[in-house]
Amino acid sequence: MTDVVIAGIGQTEVGEHWDIGLRDLAFAAIQDAVKDAGGLRPQSLFVGNMLAPNLSNQAHLGVLIADFAGLIGIEAVTLEAAGASGGAALRQGYLAVASGMVDVALVIGVEKFTDKVGSGVDAALSTTSDSDFEAIHGMTPASQAALLMKRYIHDYEVPEHGFAGFALTAHANGVANRNAMFRKAIKPETYAKAEMVSDPLNMFDMAPNADGAAALVLTRRDLLPSEFHHPLVKIAGSAASSDTLALHDRKDMLFFDTAQISAGKAMKQANLIFENIDLFEYHDTFSIYAALQLEAVGFAVKGKGWKLAADGEIGLQGTIPCATMGGMKARGFPGGAAGVYQAVDAVIQLRGQAEANQVPDAKIALIQSLGGPASTAVSHILQRLD
Amino acid sequence: MTDVVIAGIGQTEVGEHWDIGLRDLAFAAIQDAVKDAGGLRPQSLFVGNMLAPNLSNQAHLGVLIADFAGLIGIEAVTLEAAGASGGAALRQGYLAVASGMVDVALVIGVEKFTDKVGSGVDAALSTTSDSDFEAIHGMTPASQAALLMKRYIHDYEVPEHGFAGFALTAHANGVANRNAMFRKAIKPETYAKAEMVSDPLNMFDMAPNADGAAALVLTRRDLLPSEFHHPLVKIAGSAASSDTLALHDRKDMLFFDTAQISAGKAMKQANLIFENIDLFEYHDTFSIYAALQLEAVGFAVKGKGWKLAADGEIGLQGTIPCATMGGMKARGFPGGAAGVYQAVDAVIQLRGQAEANQVPDAKIALIQSLGGPASTAVSHILQRLD
Repeated sequence: MTDVVIAGIGQTEVGEHWDIGLRDLAFAAIQDAVKDAGGLRPQSLFVGNMLAPNLSNQAHLGVLIADFAGLIGIEAVTLEAAGASGGAALRQGYLAVASGMVDVALVIGVEKFTDKVGSGVDAALSTTSDSDFEAIHGMTPASQAALLMKRYIHDYEVPEHGFAGFALTAHANGVANRNAMFRKAIKPETYAKAEMVSDPLNMFDMAPNADGAAALVLTRRDLLPSEFHHPLVKIAGSAASSDTLALHDRKDMLFFDTAQISAGKAMKQANLIFENIDLFEYHDTFSIYAALQLEAVGFAVKGKGWKLAADGEIGLQGTIPCATMGGMKARGFPGGAAGVYQAVDAVIQLRGQAEANQVPDAKIALIQSLGGPASTAVSHILQRLD
Repeated sequence: MTDVVIAGIGQTEVGEHWDIGLRDLAFAAIQDAVKDAGGLRPQSLFVGNMLAPNLSNQAHLGVLIADFAGLIGIEAVTLEAAGASGGAALRQGYLAVASGMVDVALVIGVEKFTDKVGSGVDAALSTTSDSDFEAIHGMTPASQAALLMKRYIHDYEVPEHGFAGFALTAHANGVANRNAMFRKAIKPETYAKAEMVSDPLNMFDMAPNADGAAALVLTRRDLLPSEFHHPLVKIAGSAASSDTLALHDRKDMLFFDTAQISAGKAMKQANLIFENIDLFEYHDTFSIYAALQLEAVGFAVKGKGWKLAADGEIGLQGTIPCATMGGMKARGFPGGAAGVYQAVDAVIQLRGQAEANQVPDAKIALIQSLGGPASTAVSHILQRLD
């Protein structure tokens, strides 16, 4: 099989786009990605979206976007797996090209949180948990993450403000990313004084819901146009895994099985081990998720993921740079687009186009997109071809 | 590439399942399909669902279902393309197996309309049309289909009750299908006297929204277990296409481009022409859709699709049997499950297991799943291997 490569990337600024709609956001990212890919025309469109049927009263996004982007006629479908919708769209695009049935696939993630305000957003987010056994009792993703964090702090005797390193790193990396929602570095005191959302989870332990769209053009290596001039990045590994939807059904809620399984499969396919990975774009909607992913993949032993962040090892010069363009914490969390932004960020790093945020000699990236508390995990290994 | 085959089929009765939830319906269909496939264990789950985030306040169905069905660990994702969600799930399952990355894929379509009642259902259905330009003005799928039907009747001078043949055929075929919602044949007088929904579209010109789940196990031919004893059915062709979301943007709203394009591509892949097709499971949520699909695929010239039904040519002994197990009209329309039911029905026919509904010597079936007024069309050719 020929390599499946990422020929084009595109993204909009992440933030609050009150003045434009879902289709406008999507189109902006698509335009950039198609241009970046030397004008390759896609045959299939895979849309990653998490909540538009509730947030924007809009389903059938595949056609909505294909129509608006002037791509009428092509295959178009939406992929949903809660917060992992972007990762799921990338994986389906990858499978389509790998099958040989589709030459050029366009993967787009899009979300518009500002189409709803107030408790409507929490109600929409709660549809991603178990409606009959969790949401009905008032559980939201943030309150669930807080319970998980509390248990982690208790079991592993994490000192006060032990999780600060995740937010500090993300915000430091967001400064130079012109598409990030927050471009201001924060100090340890800022984290320490932050307003509590759901004890022990504070404002800086969670990513802000935001609007945004990111796009990728996938193709086979032999189909690249002569106009393509970037260092080439291939998808070397792709895998997804599921766990119980409800946290209370887990044997060990402090270990993200799906993060381990999906990353393990993707690394096996790529013939790599975790020591080969130059950067890790984790799914840091909550700092506790970031810690648990570092442990699941193997970068830290159980109970020590937070320490890696506290010790500065996830910084751009650390042993395993994470959230290198600001992550979901500082770039913002545009729902079903988040997993596609991870891929865009990783490609920028692997092409050596990250400027102030460049991870030195980055060749291999792991990206991981989560739905719920790792009820879904989708992992991809992206690799620069020299 | 080895053939991708349908190794197992499963379905629940279509109807109003007030007493059980989405996950229960899905599990029942999965159990049947896995058993039918000789116990093959799936690695990936592709869920076709249209409206659960609105109807059932439940997103993240992939994990919900994998969890409940005892399949924790496998890849699980939801596919949405309005009414074509079931067809889209089948196509993604097909691409996954065709890629060689997935050995056994489980495709499930599920919907539970009874989780919502009254105008909530119309509001949910309207999210599949253009929220900003159609739904906001009160357009529903039924009122849209009525406009289309009115234009068709005007342009082609269709006589009064000219569309009756679609409902008469579907209801006749539903009688012997123990999973159909309606199992009573109707007379021409019943159609003629039917209550008007949106002039000229009456109660018998539209399929009833219903609850149901259907499942398919896909694998490669060389991986079939020794326990598999059915006549073998392969997926010989698969394609999808998009048109404008809004009807008012079409050059010719009385021709379903996507139905033609996707069926044409699927037939080309299968190396077949429409004359080779033994039965056609069309997407008869509205009788006008059925007429336009017959014309788009080539079974009738423009303006004469209704005549094929009126002349009895779509019956089990006709030139092109359609809705052979009752179609969406008599079996019921369980949203995102509908496209998977089409495949289940076609496999039953191709295996020769359709009993009273058997199409004589059925070898090749075309199934077509629509989203909106053919804004999305997904077509598959299923073929019996002797």
